Amino acid sequence: MKKITLQIHCKDQSGIIATVTNFIANNNGNIVYIDQHVDREQDIFFMRLESEFTSFSMEAFKLNFKTELAERFNMKWRIYNDEEKPKMALFVSKYDHCLYDLLGRYNSGELNLQIPFIISNHNTLKPIADSFNIPFYHIPVTKDTKAEAEAQQLKLCDAHGIDFIVLARYMQIVSSKIINKFPNKVINIHHSFLPAFVGAKPYHSAYKRGVKIIGATSHYVTEELDAGPIIEQDVERISHTYTIEDLIAKGRDLERVVLANAIKLHIKRKVMVFNNKTVIFS
Amino acid sequence: MKKITLQIHCKDQSGIIATVTNFIANNNGNIVYIDQHVDREQDIFFMRLESEFTSFSMEAFKLNFKTELAERFNMKWRIYNDEEKPKMALFVSKYDHCLYDLLGRYNSGELNLQIPFIISNHNTLKPIADSFNIPFYHIPVTKDTKAEAEAQQLKLCDAHGIDFIVLARYMQIVSSKIINKFPNKVINIHHSFLPAFVGAKPYHSAYKRGVKIIGATSHYVTEELDAGPIIEQDVERISHTYTIEDLIAKGRDLERVVLANAIKLHIKRKVMVFNNKTVIFS
Amino acid sequence: MKKITLQIHCKDQSGIIATVTNFIANNNGNIVYIDQHVDREQDIFFMRLESEFTSFSMEAFKLNFKTELAERFNMKWRIYNDEEKPKMALFVSKYDHCLYDLLGRYNSGELNLQIPFIISNHNTLKPIADSFNIPFYHIPVTKDTKAEAEAQQLKLCDAHGIDFIVLARYMQIVSSKIINKFPNKVINIHHSFLPAFVGAKPYHSAYKRGVKIIGATSHYVTEELDAGPIIEQDVERISHTYTIEDLIAKGRDLERVVLANAIKLHIKRKVMVFNNKTVIFS
Amino acid sequence: MKKITLQIHCKDQSGIIATVTNFIANNNGNIVYIDQHVDREQDIFFMRLESEFTSFSMEAFKLNFKTELAERFNMKWRIYNDEEKPKMALFVSKYDHCLYDLLGRYNSGELNLQIPFIISNHNTLKPIADSFNIPFYHIPVTKDTKAEAEAQQLKLCDAHGIDFIVLARYMQIVSSKIINKFPNKVINIHHSFLPAFVGAKPYHSAYKRGVKIIGATSHYVTEELDAGPIIEQDVERISHTYTIEDLIAKGRDLERVVLANAIKLHIKRKVMVFNNKTVIFS
Repeated sequence: MKKITLQIHCKDQSGIIATVTNFIANNNGNIVYIDQHVDREQDIFFMRLESEFTSFSMEAFKLNFKTELAERFNMKWRIYNDEEKPKMALFVSKYDHCLYDLLGRYNSGELNLQIPFIISNHNTLKPIADSFNIPFYHIPVTKDTKAEAEAQQLKLCDAHGIDFIVLARYMQIVSSKIINKFPNKVINIHHSFLPAFVGAKPYHSAYKRGVKIIGATSHYVTEELDAGPIIEQDVERISHTYTIEDLIAKGRDLERVVLANAIKLHIKRKVMVFNNKTVIFS
Repeated sequence: MKKITLQIHCKDQSGIIATVTNFIANNNGNIVYIDQHVDREQDIFFMRLESEFTSFSMEAFKLNFKTELAERFNMKWRIYNDEEKPKMALFVSKYDHCLYDLLGRYNSGELNLQIPFIISNHNTLKPIADSFNIPFYHIPVTKDTKAEAEAQQLKLCDAHGIDFIVLARYMQIVSSKIINKFPNKVINIHHSFLPAFVGAKPYHSAYKRGVKIIGATSHYVTEELDAGPIIEQDVERISHTYTIEDLIAKGRDLERVVLANAIKLHIKRKVMVFNNKTVIFS
Repeated sequence: MKKITLQIHCKDQSGIIATVTNFIANNNGNIVYIDQHVDREQDIFFMRLESEFTSFSMEAFKLNFKTELAERFNMKWRIYNDEEKPKMALFVSKYDHCLYDLLGRYNSGELNLQIPFIISNHNTLKPIADSFNIPFYHIPVTKDTKAEAEAQQLKLCDAHGIDFIVLARYMQIVSSKIINKFPNKVINIHHSFLPAFVGAKPYHSAYKRGVKIIGATSHYVTEELDAGPIIEQDVERISHTYTIEDLIAKGRDLERVVLANAIKLHIKRKVMVFNNKTVIFS
Repeated sequence: MKKITLQIHCKDQSGIIATVTNFIANNNGNIVYIDQHVDREQDIFFMRLESEFTSFSMEAFKLNFKTELAERFNMKWRIYNDEEKPKMALFVSKYDHCLYDLLGRYNSGELNLQIPFIISNHNTLKPIADSFNIPFYHIPVTKDTKAEAEAQQLKLCDAHGIDFIVLARYMQIVSSKIINKFPNKVINIHHSFLPAFVGAKPYHSAYKRGVKIIGATSHYVTEELDAGPIIEQDVERISHTYTIEDLIAKGRDLERVVLANAIKLHIKRKVMVFNNKTVIFS
């Protein structure tokens, strides 16, 4: 039994659903799950579909899908082999809360993925990586060595067949070189309720503005800082009694959960991106 | 152009989605929206489908669907004409907050339904009904007159072709006579986070137990008190400083929104009930 | 028995609490409630105190407090007579949801205040004011007549001894003339999670940015648009399926509750403002 | 400079606040923070007070407080030396999520306490204790050995001067022997929104009932199962798509944060217990 997930989007047209479901049936597939959305403002049709096949050839399926459907409806589409666990590269710096959280979830089987390695610009968190038996690469980054460091990072990603990158409070701006290699595949956690408090020190800005609720946002990294497609957000109520340190501590709780949820949605292929916004199938 | 919504559930089987989508296509329908869920524990397949037809005969469709699909897959199914606004009977007592809220939403066009009348066991809220120009029937209920009162209520529902009943803090237990006439069509708002604090005076019980969060629950009424299928719930954080009166006031905010959301889900035919639980398509 | 509430703030100093509580005791007062906060970053001490007196002269108390305490600690302070219900002027435009909500709460006794009148730049909501028996003044506002309209508004406020103004989706920018007359006494409801989406059409901006949570913010109006001290905020989770109309409808639920909560905090004298931020005693 | 925290409760009486604040002043103390609450239903006065003293004798203070205040007002009271970090004994079983979370927070300096040891009825989590360099005692518990095991546990607590015990998903019912030794000092995390779903397998019960929101509750352990004073609760929205495994995973996120928050409130002496309910000063 072969299981695949299909993501499709195209201009909205009559008959797409029937045509696609027919195609699956004609290829002896059984649709296990179907999700669909139409963005009426942009007139775009989105679809996500899980199917099982008793016999299956990826090559043949791709070819037939392309010629029979994709070209006819002018579709953008992706197919995923559900048996393959996606490979995630973890980029960290000195903060350990997201790292502990993700490795704890990974250990408990909550995350259906592989972590071939952890990269950091500091050596601080190496003992944690060690205690979870995950290779740790220390790649320092300075203004002068940034291009070289990123080349090293990409080389490691290449060597391990990395599918997506997670910046778990990495604290460095990632250049277009990496972004273009991993389009909508670099997930960041920003410690504010975007679009409020873009950039550095958002908890300090939140404190200064006197907001009554703080947040965290996980998004795909794009060239514009903190402006990429939002995957997940969450918030917590605060009060005037919170110091900046209290905000930072409360924020860690948000960051952990928001980043983990975003990763889960990503690896279940529940996220589709169009025009800098996400469709999140649940 | 005819628009319909179809709700289907049956034992999970291979090929249902393709067969149903095919059937719609073969009847010259265009699927606008499809939602689906499989309850793996009970092995039940659920589906909700919105379609448009340029020409349509309800009779023919029903007959064909029954003979070609429903019997084959042993489906339970319902079809709704999306152009018909469902008719809601509002039952109230002396509390006005849900009534004001629902009539305000109704007036603003937020609720796509008709309200042929309001029934109350007291005359207290008649001026509100009057100010919104909705007929108000005062049907007092005592232990002795309950059966007769309910007969009157049902007669009114019948006369106006009522589709569903909303108990907007009606404060009376509705008998099986009404429930059986409107199965999964009597919506109640209970002022607690069910299953905590079933029955009378839940805010008093919440106060006594010292909970830090209170809630409200909207559910379909079944014969067992406050035990019917849950449609919607919401909660609010409280503290030791809240008196019972504060809880009641905070609770009103919850009740208003939870009941309104449940009604919206119901009239959009987003709710399916099976085994005392709901599937809520969003 | 006389009940008063005292609000004090000054530079943080040793011995303030004991001195103030002593002063109350020496004046035969009994402290019923005390709340206090120190902003360590700005080194400011805040205090709120409810007291009861069997015999009381406001003049004498004020004079003694001023000479014995306020001058010594260089305090800013206010005293409120708890028996006086604050007088609120309601400014509305065409949207009715906050108006219905506030008048419903007012009717139910939830709001311990007086509403001498409602002002609107349109006649649309007059019937609602009428049904609640509250005087309604239609004062149209155009660019050319704005100064004159505001003069009329202030005259009405003056004539009725208005304590504070609530802009319940008033949709007009209020000039410094009104703000200066009512410093930290003009409460606005903004339909976004400030500081995100300042200005007009925040739901459209939220839709465009693809946020997963929307919010509403109630704040005191200052000269800078949507930048005044925040009193209360709340948020709701949304998804890609929400149209702009859905956001607006969901937002109405937020606006109602957030504005009502802000008003309740204000009239209980639970809010203190310093340096464009609020201390909210609960 | 000596810092202390004082917790007081007694029948509500006139003049308590002034008398206490006076007492502190007369003993050359400066009140840094004062919190107070009156439970009007039970007529009980609660107070929490942080003070600084340039010179301080604990013995003298206690004696004077007792004779001058406590006896006069018939107070129950406790005094804490703020320089002493409370000692927490961690009891765990096989689940690691709360353990990782607490040790991560401990490491980051978020928890101002000491963890002299971890006790478990299984050896499973020893490597985690080791990686954080905290002594781990494996004390198996069976029906027959329970009394003996608890004696061992108490002996360890005694030897290390333990102040309070945290059951971080310990999965064993603690007997009255331990509870009486640590009254309102054994903190448990229950994986439901109490009082809903008391006892074993609450996520299974939540799944069966079809609730739309799940929760977690941290409370002090009393002899009645899951019925002790509630310190902290939190909830998360779920849907029909959640399997029991999904509920359990989502629940872990709740349990972590709710337990950590309860511990933080406890060690800051922000919690007061009366009649099986808590007053939580913030």
